[in-house]
Amino acid sequence: MANAQHTALIPLVDGFEEAEAIVTIDILRRAGIAVTVAGATAAQVRSSHDVVVNTDRYYRDTEDEEFDAIVLPGGPGTSKLNEVGGLHERLRQQAASGRLVAAICAAPSVLAAAGLLKGKKAACYPSVEDKLAAAGATVLHETVVTDGDIITSRGVGTALDFALAVAAHLQGAATAADVARAIVYSPAG
Amino acid sequence: MANAQHTALIPLVDGFEEAEAIVTIDILRRAGIAVTVAGATAAQVRSSHDVVVNTDRYYRDTEDEEFDAIVLPGGPGTSKLNEVGGLHERLRQQAASGRLVAAICAAPSVLAAAGLLKGKKAACYPSVEDKLAAAGATVLHETVVTDGDIITSRGVGTALDFALAVAAHLQGAATAADVARAIVYSPAG
Repeated sequence: MANAQHTALIPLVDGFEEAEAIVTIDILRRAGIAVTVAGATAAQVRSSHDVVVNTDRYYRDTEDEEFDAIVLPGGPGTSKLNEVGGLHERLRQQAASGRLVAAICAAPSVLAAAGLLKGKKAACYPSVEDKLAAAGATVLHETVVTDGDIITSRGVGTALDFALAVAAHLQGAATAADVARAIVYSPAG
Repeated sequence: MANAQHTALIPLVDGFEEAEAIVTIDILRRAGIAVTVAGATAAQVRSSHDVVVNTDRYYRDTEDEEFDAIVLPGGPGTSKLNEVGGLHERLRQQAASGRLVAAICAAPSVLAAAGLLKGKKAACYPSVEDKLAAAGATVLHETVVTDGDIITSRGVGTALDFALAVAAHLQGAATAADVARAIVYSPAG
C-alpha cells in the first residue's frame, strides 16, 4: 500500500523502565504509528517500579514480521534483552536494511552488544557509557542522538524528546510537532 | 510513627492518560512514597492509548484510609472520576485537612467540580480551562501551579515537572532533585 501505516515493535522484559516504555507507546500511537508491545517471555510484564502491564503479543510471535522501527526502553531489566533469542541478529538486520533502531537509557547497551554502535555517535544512561565506548561508540551527552537510522537517548528525563524524535523520523517533523502541541510540550533548548 | 512513609493514592478509570499516570507513579516511587494505584471499577484499567495496567487495589477498598496525597491523572476518561461515589467529598476532606490534592491535564476539572478551586490559582489542559474558570479558579498558563496544598498541571508534556513537584511537596526539594538527577532530567527554565 502506498500509505501503509508505519509500524513499531517495542519488546518488554520484566524490570523495564515504565515511564520510558509508556511515554514512547503513548507518543508513537498519538503520531499514528501502529505500535506492537511484545512480551519477551510472558503476556504480562512487571516494570522496575512494580507496574504490571499487559503486552499485545508474545515477542516470539513477531519474529517473522518486519517493523519500521524497533524501540528498546531501558530500566534495570535491560540486560535480559540480550538473552532474547535472535534479538541481536534481528537488530543487525533491521539496521542493515535501513529501518529504524531506537534505544533509551540502559538499552543502547543492547545495541552495543549487537555490534551496531561501532563508529556511531550515541547517547545513553551515564552508567552504561563505558559499555558503549568499549563497543566503539562515541558517547555524546545530548538529549537525543540520531546517527543514520539509529536514535538513542539518556533516560526517563529525556523520554519525551526521544519518543518525539522517533515519531518525527517515521511520520515527519510536522506530525511530531502536532503531537508536542497536543500534549502541551515545549522542548528545552 | 515519626518517620512513617508518605503515601499517595492514584485512582484510575478507563481512558486514563497512560503517560501522566505512569510517569507520576514512577517518580513518586523513586522518591520513596508508597503509591497505591486504585482501580475505580476494576482490577485492570485500559488507558487512552490501549495500554492495560493492573491496579494495586480497588478504589472502594481504600475509602477508609487517609493518604498524604491524592493524585489524579487526566485523559479522555477523566469525567468518569466525577462518577466515582464519594470521591468529590473525599477530595474536599483531603483539602480541608491540609493534605495534598494534585491533578493534571483534564483532571483539575474534577477538583473544580468538587468545589476545590474557587478563588484558587490552577493550571490545566487548554480544553478544560473554561470549566475551571466557571468554578472560580484563576487559570495560569504555567507548567505547574501550586496554591496551598493543591498542585495542578497541564498535560503529558508537563507530567515530569508535575510529578517532581508532588514529590518535592511530600519528600522535600532535595529528594526531588535527587530523583531528577537520577533520571537525567533538567527542568526547563
